Amino acid sequence: MIKHYGLTLPAYKRGFHIITDKVMNAIDELPENGLLHVFIQHTSASLTINENADPSVRRDFERHFNQMVPENAPYYEHTYEGSDDMPAHLKASILGPSISIPIVNSRLGLGTWQGIYLAEHRDHGGARRLVISVYS
Amino acid sequence: MIKHYGLTLPAYKRGFHIITDKVMNAIDELPENGLLHVFIQHTSASLTINENADPSVRRDFERHFNQMVPENAPYYEHTYEGSDDMPAHLKASILGPSISIPIVNSRLGLGTWQGIYLAEHRDHGGARRLVISVYS
Amino acid sequence: MIKHYGLTLPAYKRGFHIITDKVMNAIDELPENGLLHVFIQHTSASLTINENADPSVRRDFERHFNQMVPENAPYYEHTYEGSDDMPAHLKASILGPSISIPIVNSRLGLGTWQGIYLAEHRDHGGARRLVISVYS
Repeated sequence: MIKHYGLTLPAYKRGFHIITDKVMNAIDELPENGLLHVFIQHTSASLTINENADPSVRRDFERHFNQMVPENAPYYEHTYEGSDDMPAHLKASILGPSISIPIVNSRLGLGTWQGIYLAEHRDHGGARRLVISVYS
Repeated sequence: MIKHYGLTLPAYKRGFHIITDKVMNAIDELPENGLLHVFIQHTSASLTINENADPSVRRDFERHFNQMVPENAPYYEHTYEGSDDMPAHLKASILGPSISIPIVNSRLGLGTWQGIYLAEHRDHGGARRLVISVYS
Repeated sequence: MIKHYGLTLPAYKRGFHIITDKVMNAIDELPENGLLHVFIQHTSASLTINENADPSVRRDFERHFNQMVPENAPYYEHTYEGSDDMPAHLKASILGPSISIPIVNSRLGLGTWQGIYLAEHRDHGGARRLVISVYS
């Protein structure tokens, strides 16, 4: 059985943000066994799983990704949507548009320190649409 | 219920290519609710999801990945299959061998601008085998 | 139907390690058709799929990721858990915490050269917990 839920996230500022609670609040009770799949319907923002505690981790993510995928690289051809656009596409694919997490004993099978991140790669990305799917 | 479909892609040149239609043409009608999973059975090509419109985005992907994962890095030890081989393995894991997309109301739940990319990382990668799975 | 299996991997040294056999030994017989999902419950180690033959590929992975995500980058703020910690978080998200592989005719649908890698990004990561899920 598969059940989908739509979730529109409000505009977040460029950077990495924990959205675990927002995802969990968007869905009904979890099945005893299953899989949670979250998919972002955009090409300049992405989803990942990482440390849910110290906010400096998320700030370092933003700084490192800006270094590894810089703005204004001389080899970019797709530049007419702004200097933050092409790096956003690249970061989105490096991190990926979906995450999937086992549901075990009616609980999300995340490790103690794991949380779901929205990675907003654009300066003014606006609202972002997610499709959350529960497989049981 | 799970149904698998094999799809052998013809040889593509090194770079990023939209294959959404090829994937969709390989499968039967979509179920009302489900998940589409696409898996590439290779270690020097990968799958990702990104912008389906402007071809310059795909060219910038190729250029940026060549910068981020260069050929002939002095620290490569695995070099006997050619200078494009070890970077291909690295790029394949950075982007990953599979994508999964929700199926909602008998349609693929992609955003307006999203398409499925084959990322061919080798100079002469040849045909590539995919396993497409529909979960319902 | 979904069945989960817990697997605690012993401490591996920092680097990339093939764990396909360990994963397969942790589960019962495979269903005829299905999906194998493997999830790591940590934020400083990750899972990926790559070449299962030449060990130099795994050594090049370690060297390249150390170049692409260096220790002691001047912009890191999250440094109090050691110089290997923040790079470990970044590498974990670049590669991702899960892999999923089709199960076809009661066999894992991996290509000839594909194996499952544990990527241990910390110097002393210790034991690592996986949740293996079989969907049929």
